[in-house]
Amino acid sequence: MTVRILTEAELREVARLDARAVDTIAGAFAALHRGEAVMPPVLSMDLEELNAEVDVKTAWMRGLDSFAVKISSGFFNNALHGLPSLSGMMAMLDSTTGRVSAVLLDNGWLTDLRTAAAGAVAARYLARQDAAVATVIGTGLQARLQLEALTLVRPIEHAFIWGRDPDKARACARDCGERLGIAVEAADDVADAVRTADIVVTTTPAREPLLHAAALQPGVHVTAMGSDAPDKNELEPSILVRADLFVCDRQSQCASIGELRAAIAAGTIPSGARVPEIGAITAGEHAARENDQQITVADLTGTGVQDTAIAALALDRATERGFGAILSTD
Amino acid sequence: MTVRILTEAELREVARLDARAVDTIAGAFAALHRGEAVMPPVLSMDLEELNAEVDVKTAWMRGLDSFAVKISSGFFNNALHGLPSLSGMMAMLDSTTGRVSAVLLDNGWLTDLRTAAAGAVAARYLARQDAAVATVIGTGLQARLQLEALTLVRPIEHAFIWGRDPDKARACARDCGERLGIAVEAADDVADAVRTADIVVTTTPAREPLLHAAALQPGVHVTAMGSDAPDKNELEPSILVRADLFVCDRQSQCASIGELRAAIAAGTIPSGARVPEIGAITAGEHAARENDQQITVADLTGTGVQDTAIAALALDRATERGFGAILSTD
Repeated sequence: MTVRILTEAELREVARLDARAVDTIAGAFAALHRGEAVMPPVLSMDLEELNAEVDVKTAWMRGLDSFAVKISSGFFNNALHGLPSLSGMMAMLDSTTGRVSAVLLDNGWLTDLRTAAAGAVAARYLARQDAAVATVIGTGLQARLQLEALTLVRPIEHAFIWGRDPDKARACARDCGERLGIAVEAADDVADAVRTADIVVTTTPAREPLLHAAALQPGVHVTAMGSDAPDKNELEPSILVRADLFVCDRQSQCASIGELRAAIAAGTIPSGARVPEIGAITAGEHAARENDQQITVADLTGTGVQDTAIAALALDRATERGFGAILSTD
Repeated sequence: MTVRILTEAELREVARLDARAVDTIAGAFAALHRGEAVMPPVLSMDLEELNAEVDVKTAWMRGLDSFAVKISSGFFNNALHGLPSLSGMMAMLDSTTGRVSAVLLDNGWLTDLRTAAAGAVAARYLARQDAAVATVIGTGLQARLQLEALTLVRPIEHAFIWGRDPDKARACARDCGERLGIAVEAADDVADAVRTADIVVTTTPAREPLLHAAALQPGVHVTAMGSDAPDKNELEPSILVRADLFVCDRQSQCASIGELRAAIAAGTIPSGARVPEIGAITAGEHAARENDQQITVADLTGTGVQDTAIAALALDRATERGFGAILSTD
């Protein structure tokens, strides 16, 4: 028996934010919708005295040679050590034998990638075809990747970045403008930045809503991808019912850690209400955006099928190219 | 940043079933009891169409440099491929930064080891000091390891092995006798084999009780370590109330996947009843066995603190000896 060990550098080389990654994530959502995947609830360990948390996600998908068990860590004092807060790895288990076939030491890159790709999937099905203006709330790595992801699926020409720290917003705008070759500017005010946007993406760990219903114009699409815990909330709950189409990545998960949770807690949405999942749309079994006036909202919490799908893609490409150390485990 | 990758052979070399392993597990239970550990509920993925399951356990323990996230797989059609059903690995995360510091490709060895060591801990505190006769129900690897574990803590001279398949029971008895240098024989009847035993260990995936209260004699200690899922049950529920002392490794976990679950389901134990945990005993805060007439029972489901403690021990020893491949993850 052998195990292939891949490093972050190798994984960044084979797994990039490109059309193939976006298609892969769209397919993962569809597989989940069709019942071709098994995805248990997330394991979550809160380490209060360390200001840290560890999550484990997994999903098996029919037809893939292996499936991922992903460990994600968030150690929020890491800046003191000059390290990013988020890290992690994935173990790949053989779908026939359950034995470990590969270890992806990605330090969280594949999570960043599949999260950004999910933003692209949401925009592909829910944003106006001619969407040219994007507003990103948040200034971190995922803010940068979400904007890049939008440029893969819509003709984005202009973007606004808003963050609580204006310096970080300016830095993020500068980085994105240089990298993407489009006009990107830091915004002083969320509502102003949202009013002209065709697409809004929220990428923060906010605990109080940053985006209010009053700021939304007809035709806008909103992707909220920051909330991944029961104490987080980026959207004013009424946005979810004002939307003509509101979708979850996984309803049960959004109801416990996403924007849907906050809306249920606020009494805006009944806890038993059925919300379409994005996989029903990518599978062609639920309508996507139907006209240029609809308001659409996607609540993305991050799912195990995304992890397994992106990891399987990365492992296939790495294997083709002979990347990685091969260890005998006997 | 670097990651140390250790193989099964290396881990078997540094982590053995010995007094140090038993002390380590006793200490882990005590730490859990004292609130010096954080241990979330198990992640469990049932893959019905593959006749397989995947579990993830983890625990952080104060004072250790790293903690384990353990992935265990059980693929019960593996015999068709000539492979053992159980496998797995552990990722070690740095307790300060959350970054992956080591990958232990143990194929389940550390789980086997910490499970056997827990049996030794239970016997050390709950079996009669002069316990000389042990009966093991089950004929697999863990049956062998549990008997070996008992010999570390009690003067075992004679053992009986019972299994549904008499050939396997004979083979297990022969193996154990040769390995341990004591008299071991296969038993034809569970009740007979239990009647003369000072210690009984059940190590099966039984779904109906194999051990009945009528067979138990005063002074016996019973460790049930087979049940680890809501459909498993080795002990007749009345045994738990007939016992003078009944302990769990982790009450909440035993109530969902251990013998305690079956007793609650049968109405034998009220669901709110408080059961002492073995860590209270190893921490010296709850009485152990008090005389040679008591009947004692331990319900062991396997806990994340055991995984983290045994993995930290193995990693320390492996590092001292310079074992493993060191990969840069940058």
